[in-house]
Amino acid sequence: MDAEKLSWGICPVGRGLARAGDAWSMLILRDAGLGQTRFDDFQKGLGIAPNILTKRLAALVEAGLLERRRYNDRPPRDEYVLTEAGRDYLPVLQALGGWARKHFGEGAMSDLVDANSGRTVTPLVVDAETGVPLSEIAVTLRQPSDA
Amino acid sequence: MDAEKLSWGICPVGRGLARAGDAWSMLILRDAGLGQTRFDDFQKGLGIAPNILTKRLAALVEAGLLERRRYNDRPPRDEYVLTEAGRDYLPVLQALGGWARKHFGEGAMSDLVDANSGRTVTPLVVDAETGVPLSEIAVTLRQPSDA
Repeated sequence: MDAEKLSWGICPVGRGLARAGDAWSMLILRDAGLGQTRFDDFQKGLGIAPNILTKRLAALVEAGLLERRRYNDRPPRDEYVLTEAGRDYLPVLQALGGWARKHFGEGAMSDLVDANSGRTVTPLVVDAETGVPLSEIAVTLRQPSDA
Repeated sequence: MDAEKLSWGICPVGRGLARAGDAWSMLILRDAGLGQTRFDDFQKGLGIAPNILTKRLAALVEAGLLERRRYNDRPPRDEYVLTEAGRDYLPVLQALGGWARKHFGEGAMSDLVDANSGRTVTPLVVDAETGVPLSEIAVTLRQPSDA
């Protein structure tokens, strides 16, 4: 896959995938959204090989989804915090989780809840302007040259 | 990555990623959503190696996102059509595209439009019950055992 080409291609989906288009990266972002910041915690939580985690964290920093912050000087230790673009990605993951719950939701599963009220939250992708679910709209892509 | 473990784990995001968690699969689903059904068209459109495409299509059929249909007997030729779960996945991709447009939207880019009205559609992930954008809700996960 030519991620470089996707990065600034005309397709918005391709641009998104070039930055967060593999399962490890998405699971790291999920855990960052749940408050994890440290290498060891990501590593333990995901059961990911350290060399892969190092690469994925570097790629997410490079893509502008995580910010690396030094929290200890001796020994040098960094933590990884979601940027605005990274935080903004979390609803995409939640939409993915909502889809999986709907179609593959058998057995025990975590609930997405409002941390303040405890109410269950059901992600739905809508058109921002009208509130109509995208699943009810026949959408298509208009190429830039058509504009 | 232990996709088998993710498939029926307690995390909905993990379950989703186990079924459609790599960039090729998502690009195939994107193109299926735009009406492509045939191996050669996917192959040409994506510039994907045929052996990888074969594997990804088989995995998407196995996961229940695509259905394989014989459209010609001599020579035998199959086409790949989105299932209900596959069609339902498209808004997740559109949410991803909307995110990429917002944060990495420089230069020429395709527009997501309503095929009937031609109006630009802006994907937004909201809580289905209240219509509040998920980005404005502090969400957390409740483990099944807490219920």
